[in-house]
Amino acid sequence: MVVTLLTDFGLEDEYAGVMKGVIHSINPASTIIDLCHQIPPGDIERAGWLLAWSWSYFPKGTVHVVVVDPGVGSTRRVLAVPHRGHCFLAPDNGVLTQALTGARRVQAYSVKNRKFFLPHVSNTFHGRDIFAPVAAHLSSGLDPRQLGHRVSSLKRLSLRSAGHRRGGWVGQVIQWDRFGNAVTNLPGKPLKRSKVSFEVRVQGYRIQGLQRSYSSATEGIPMAIIGSRGLLEIAINGGSAIRDLGLSIGDRVEVVRSQ
Amino acid sequence: MVVTLLTDFGLEDEYAGVMKGVIHSINPASTIIDLCHQIPPGDIERAGWLLAWSWSYFPKGTVHVVVVDPGVGSTRRVLAVPHRGHCFLAPDNGVLTQALTGARRVQAYSVKNRKFFLPHVSNTFHGRDIFAPVAAHLSSGLDPRQLGHRVSSLKRLSLRSAGHRRGGWVGQVIQWDRFGNAVTNLPGKPLKRSKVSFEVRVQGYRIQGLQRSYSSATEGIPMAIIGSRGLLEIAINGGSAIRDLGLSIGDRVEVVRSQ
Amino acid sequence: MVVTLLTDFGLEDEYAGVMKGVIHSINPASTIIDLCHQIPPGDIERAGWLLAWSWSYFPKGTVHVVVVDPGVGSTRRVLAVPHRGHCFLAPDNGVLTQALTGARRVQAYSVKNRKFFLPHVSNTFHGRDIFAPVAAHLSSGLDPRQLGHRVSSLKRLSLRSAGHRRGGWVGQVIQWDRFGNAVTNLPGKPLKRSKVSFEVRVQGYRIQGLQRSYSSATEGIPMAIIGSRGLLEIAINGGSAIRDLGLSIGDRVEVVRSQ
Repeated sequence: MVVTLLTDFGLEDEYAGVMKGVIHSINPASTIIDLCHQIPPGDIERAGWLLAWSWSYFPKGTVHVVVVDPGVGSTRRVLAVPHRGHCFLAPDNGVLTQALTGARRVQAYSVKNRKFFLPHVSNTFHGRDIFAPVAAHLSSGLDPRQLGHRVSSLKRLSLRSAGHRRGGWVGQVIQWDRFGNAVTNLPGKPLKRSKVSFEVRVQGYRIQGLQRSYSSATEGIPMAIIGSRGLLEIAINGGSAIRDLGLSIGDRVEVVRSQ
Repeated sequence: MVVTLLTDFGLEDEYAGVMKGVIHSINPASTIIDLCHQIPPGDIERAGWLLAWSWSYFPKGTVHVVVVDPGVGSTRRVLAVPHRGHCFLAPDNGVLTQALTGARRVQAYSVKNRKFFLPHVSNTFHGRDIFAPVAAHLSSGLDPRQLGHRVSSLKRLSLRSAGHRRGGWVGQVIQWDRFGNAVTNLPGKPLKRSKVSFEVRVQGYRIQGLQRSYSSATEGIPMAIIGSRGLLEIAINGGSAIRDLGLSIGDRVEVVRSQ
Repeated sequence: MVVTLLTDFGLEDEYAGVMKGVIHSINPASTIIDLCHQIPPGDIERAGWLLAWSWSYFPKGTVHVVVVDPGVGSTRRVLAVPHRGHCFLAPDNGVLTQALTGARRVQAYSVKNRKFFLPHVSNTFHGRDIFAPVAAHLSSGLDPRQLGHRVSSLKRLSLRSAGHRRGGWVGQVIQWDRFGNAVTNLPGKPLKRSKVSFEVRVQGYRIQGLQRSYSSATEGIPMAIIGSRGLLEIAINGGSAIRDLGLSIGDRVEVVRSQ
């Protein structure tokens, strides 16, 4: 079974490799896939978005391990959360908020049963001592109910929200990517279907209409486009919208009818 | 079967991980190997070199996926190209130029059959929606002819070329590596076999003869060496030829008889 | 069987990927795990620490390949070293020093038998031409004695050492990690068990007692903590001890009784 890893461990240290060693020692038949290790240290919200945009592309039965865990060693819980045939294993710090958006009746189990941990548990590297061995057992078919009692509620991040306003929409920049694209929380479908022409406004820039592909816009000119997550993005062909337009997470983005 | 991935997606985002999820969902028996995800965005030529220097070290039957694809979502074609028991899957943007150098009668198929794509195809992430599922099917034994019609010609990059000149050779710097080594397009064999002593000239530097290993040269002094690709390299033991000598891709490199 | 890779090849080039291609061509049943490719070029000591902190978390039978090898192509030997059911494959440049600390009667074999190399061996990329094929054969069950004669001694790094002094301890910073934590060579156990309160002194800072977790200290204030390697670390909750306190490898760290 597949185990995915999403951490803020980076790739300079041995942390991600050691987790894989532990998983393989317990379940040699597992397939371990790196989702991302380059989450900025402690950036729970970014990790939450990357997970939400990824998990459903993996096969059923996948165990998705998230170790963006600034509270490691404190009293924060570790949760195992079966969801639509997948299983999330993450600290209870809100990192599952986006992946579980819209989920009714979330089952979540507090990971407490030391039988499934490494014999010695440090206070600073639960990725190795708790998450990796538990993920290995889950990927071997362990029922999450064996891990601990069911919990009644999870910590949730309070996320920026997008909405209608005077016939248009207003939202925010919520993430960036390597190409400098600014991902917003404005869903693409209504814009794609819109029969009136509109303008996207962000940080004083006014962008007309939607481009069909990154390369269809003139190089260097800001564009609006529906990205691969189904969300409106601000991008620049041959440039970086984040850098060149000075955009930041939280920046207000408005969609208004063109005049 | 092995699937290799060569992209400009970097490792900060979920892109490479999601491709692996899609491949695994379709062909759980595949082995996915990262060739490189750190190609500078849109650098088709560098991707082409890395592919050319790598593919033959993989087992026969490997599917080599290249997603350095600034034209994603435009009319550029996606090609499946069987070659010496391997199969390349790449946009038709010239990225296969170097890997196919010297190949006669290239077979290439335009990837069109949506049966092998994800059900929903975005305009911005064909790596996930087209390349990954098609690679998974190819690695499961799909005949590339099932993907679409045969095309008569591929886009080719026009590459810098090296040649003889007055009893010597003249070429260019074509790539760099992490160690700051400058890779040229001058083949190493004739230099190795040369019975006369020679001098390598680049950016005003004059380097005598060839070193046998990086560590055989004095630290800090520019050296010429035949690198692992069989090409002449300019290097500095304990330093970076690219940075310390200010070399760039395209810089002229001359090999002349020592006087 | 598992093969781990620990190199200074970085991830910008094709080097690590090509090694995996070679290993897979020879042993398709191997599982290849990246321990780390981001060792700073030629930093043998850091590679040695990462290996020492990792190898025992992998299953018995794992082949641990280290290619941090500034002497590639020179007369330095390549060694295969069976150790507690694992096997190290590394240049004889001291990189195994830490992993073999305390090992009695080390067996080490000089890797000489070209039958297990690629047919053409370059002078600049033994990772591809020697380490990868030999690792593949070892992971297929090759007896290391088939590789070459037994050698009587290995090169050892002379490492900084920690010790008692006047009822306290004195040691050094020996490594850093992505989070800016400064790892020292002071073992954590005696500090944890200490019944008297103490103070950690480094670069003019004085830190009282031990924190239980990174998040239990006030943000921005230097803390001392026993890290996941069982060693004393200097850390800053929400910051970087290395950067914010200006710490470097080799900095003296003292533990003294609080007054």
